[in-house]
Amino acid sequence: MSNIIQPSTLSGFMELEPGDQIVFDKIKSTLEEVYRLYGFFPIDTPILEKSEILLAKAGGETEKQLYRFNKGDTDITMRFDLTVPLAKYVAKNRGELAFPFKRYQIGKVYRGERSQRGRFREFYQADIDIIGDGELGIVNDAEIPSIIYTVFTRLGLEDFTIRINNRKLLNGFFDILGASDKAGDILHIIDKIDKIGRDKVREELCEAELTAEVADSILDLLCNNANDEEAFAKLESYVGKNETFDAGLSELKEVSDYIAKFGVPKENFRIDLTIARGLDYYTGTVYETTFNKHPEIGSICSGGRYDNLAEFYTKSKLPGVGISIGLTRLFYILWEREYLNKTVSYPADVMIIPMTDDMSKAVEISASLRARNIRTQLYVERKKFKQMISYADRLSVPYVIFLGEDEINSGMLSVKDMTSGEQKSLSLDDTVSLILERVEESRNSKCLVFDK
Amino acid sequence: MSNIIQPSTLSGFMELEPGDQIVFDKIKSTLEEVYRLYGFFPIDTPILEKSEILLAKAGGETEKQLYRFNKGDTDITMRFDLTVPLAKYVAKNRGELAFPFKRYQIGKVYRGERSQRGRFREFYQADIDIIGDGELGIVNDAEIPSIIYTVFTRLGLEDFTIRINNRKLLNGFFDILGASDKAGDILHIIDKIDKIGRDKVREELCEAELTAEVADSILDLLCNNANDEEAFAKLESYVGKNETFDAGLSELKEVSDYIAKFGVPKENFRIDLTIARGLDYYTGTVYETTFNKHPEIGSICSGGRYDNLAEFYTKSKLPGVGISIGLTRLFYILWEREYLNKTVSYPADVMIIPMTDDMSKAVEISASLRARNIRTQLYVERKKFKQMISYADRLSVPYVIFLGEDEINSGMLSVKDMTSGEQKSLSLDDTVSLILERVEESRNSKCLVFDK
Repeated sequence: MSNIIQPSTLSGFMELEPGDQIVFDKIKSTLEEVYRLYGFFPIDTPILEKSEILLAKAGGETEKQLYRFNKGDTDITMRFDLTVPLAKYVAKNRGELAFPFKRYQIGKVYRGERSQRGRFREFYQADIDIIGDGELGIVNDAEIPSIIYTVFTRLGLEDFTIRINNRKLLNGFFDILGASDKAGDILHIIDKIDKIGRDKVREELCEAELTAEVADSILDLLCNNANDEEAFAKLESYVGKNETFDAGLSELKEVSDYIAKFGVPKENFRIDLTIARGLDYYTGTVYETTFNKHPEIGSICSGGRYDNLAEFYTKSKLPGVGISIGLTRLFYILWEREYLNKTVSYPADVMIIPMTDDMSKAVEISASLRARNIRTQLYVERKKFKQMISYADRLSVPYVIFLGEDEINSGMLSVKDMTSGEQKSLSLDDTVSLILERVEESRNSKCLVFDK
Repeated sequence: MSNIIQPSTLSGFMELEPGDQIVFDKIKSTLEEVYRLYGFFPIDTPILEKSEILLAKAGGETEKQLYRFNKGDTDITMRFDLTVPLAKYVAKNRGELAFPFKRYQIGKVYRGERSQRGRFREFYQADIDIIGDGELGIVNDAEIPSIIYTVFTRLGLEDFTIRINNRKLLNGFFDILGASDKAGDILHIIDKIDKIGRDKVREELCEAELTAEVADSILDLLCNNANDEEAFAKLESYVGKNETFDAGLSELKEVSDYIAKFGVPKENFRIDLTIARGLDYYTGTVYETTFNKHPEIGSICSGGRYDNLAEFYTKSKLPGVGISIGLTRLFYILWEREYLNKTVSYPADVMIIPMTDDMSKAVEISASLRARNIRTQLYVERKKFKQMISYADRLSVPYVIFLGEDEINSGMLSVKDMTSGEQKSLSLDDTVSLILERVEESRNSKCLVFDK
């Protein structure tokens, strides 16, 4: 060929090297395992949908970021989240689904955002939602954070906090202060407190034409709590003044109580009255999740309770509660900070290197090892010894089996531990036991490490 | 909302009901497990690529079927297979990869084909390839079918045949017949033998300006073999006449020998000299896989050896061998013929139904069961007993635990076997043992059943 096209990948599209991909996949399958453990169904909706479906709600700002095109007569958009496709799916299949419908979906979504470090145009979201038909019990709101706790601890994440709030409580509170017409502004300003600080928030609240007294009440209640007990004590003092507030407080208490009963340790969740999660979707419980040591990262897992999942596609009221992990972004953050456990990123537990022209015995042994569920690579190229060992080394396989005339005749295998460099002569059975021990160890090791 | 948009999915896009999705995912993860067992790396390339990359090779016919669009200044195409992205990936990362590079990728690809039953515009392909740098040993050509054999038997497929041929052998044979300028036509006609039959093939060969004698030689050698021994015996009679033929025959023999040594039973593979797999890509071993009882389905898994994976992106010669399963189509075929094992398609091993207002005990038990890796659904809605049981029934969960005052006080659980209808009073430990037995059974059951 004379014309070589420079091989490149679109910017903003993550494409990992094979070793990192192993860790990514292990993280992804940990999520799947945990979602299944809680009895959630998988669904897999298309990446392409009719634009009229995906954009039933979307405004102008969102539209600019879309991958939208025509194919024949059809106006098509690539999905930009997994919530709108879920709404369509549930509305479409309402008659066949059993409610509450618990589903997870992990898939790629697309946003044509400005390209910048750590921002992706194609990225995985990992969503779980529980959808009710007409109504949905509040204990579900406590189960969702317990799922997130299980996911993160199984990954090896420590030192994270699931923050919980309730939108009814906030709205009721603003009503009590006579500021409910400014609820939107207040929530928007309060949402920035971690970024801009208390003083600047107070300033902005006053700029939003709230009195200094109201601004202080807001700040005192929402932003000054050492722990959940203090928050609840302050909240109690407002009880009886507003029905919405009282309902929100009662929900928040119930959710908080049940979260503990689901087994989430006290240090991993707390009430944070500053959390609002946008303005027009969530109606009750809201969640964010932060790394204690890396507040600058912001929330790595957010969601909440909504009243009406699919109002654009059905007249049925479908309330739900759910949460989403931005998996690609989370992976990037962990990768960048070197938190990935690279010791799990080899593709085979053992490599067999035949030293004879006839590779029959090596092939047979590879079949025996695989029958014992040992991931086995068979190296069948005719190269110099040094090159073969270097290949095994680059793949980080923990064991290599050499198979020459001597080994074939004696029936004993030369097994090299690539970590220690030690080489032993072992029977096939002993080799299997040795490798399986390592496999078990690797299976139990987590995707992330934080001890460096 | 006043304007309801009818929820619908684009035609040609598979969107499964949740129970079927469980079986689909189980099939997909069986593929992944087996690919890993053979020491393959995962990779995950983007669904979108620059058009100049994806279309470096493509001709006009292919272009019509593409999802191609502009975003800003960028001409973008959705991938239509996983081979071109692999070529790009390997060319781009050649310096960092260790060769042979063994990778699998399971992902969605897009073709805007005419919509018809069983044809999909978005579908999963599941590919494995082994790529060499400059050269690649022939034993790899035998390992690939052994992977396919393991995949299909683990899925529960029986009665399938992996068919093997060699392009060098075919090309050399046509050369011997003095028909090498017609090799393309001949391969094209021969490829249709299963569809149009021997007589029609002979007719078409003659129409392609081959003599009746040559047409008969082709048909006698390629299409008339009772078994591999007969095929090899006939092939032997041409040895010494053409180097390419001799090389192809020697490769075919070696591959056939090694396939058996990899543990593939004789009844699951055979030489089929009619297989060619298109004209311009494969250069050595070629594979197809067919259901013995359903020849009308055609090949469900095809591939072969190629000389140059990435000629459009690099001057390096990168030979490879690989195979692809059209997973969505295969699933559809199995689904349509009711071969899916629906007995595995429930989302939870047990459902806990609390019968008291305070659900604390139920929540705690759900946490214990999940800690034992039992998939547990907790039903927290306040409904009538009949509705709750009907929900458990619709989800096909095998066990339900009822938890009322009596159970909470006695510490004994009421456990209902939903299959037999039998209800027992059991301790938590005995409940765990009972459910785990069923979990184990379900884990060992295959995705497909053929005994109906």
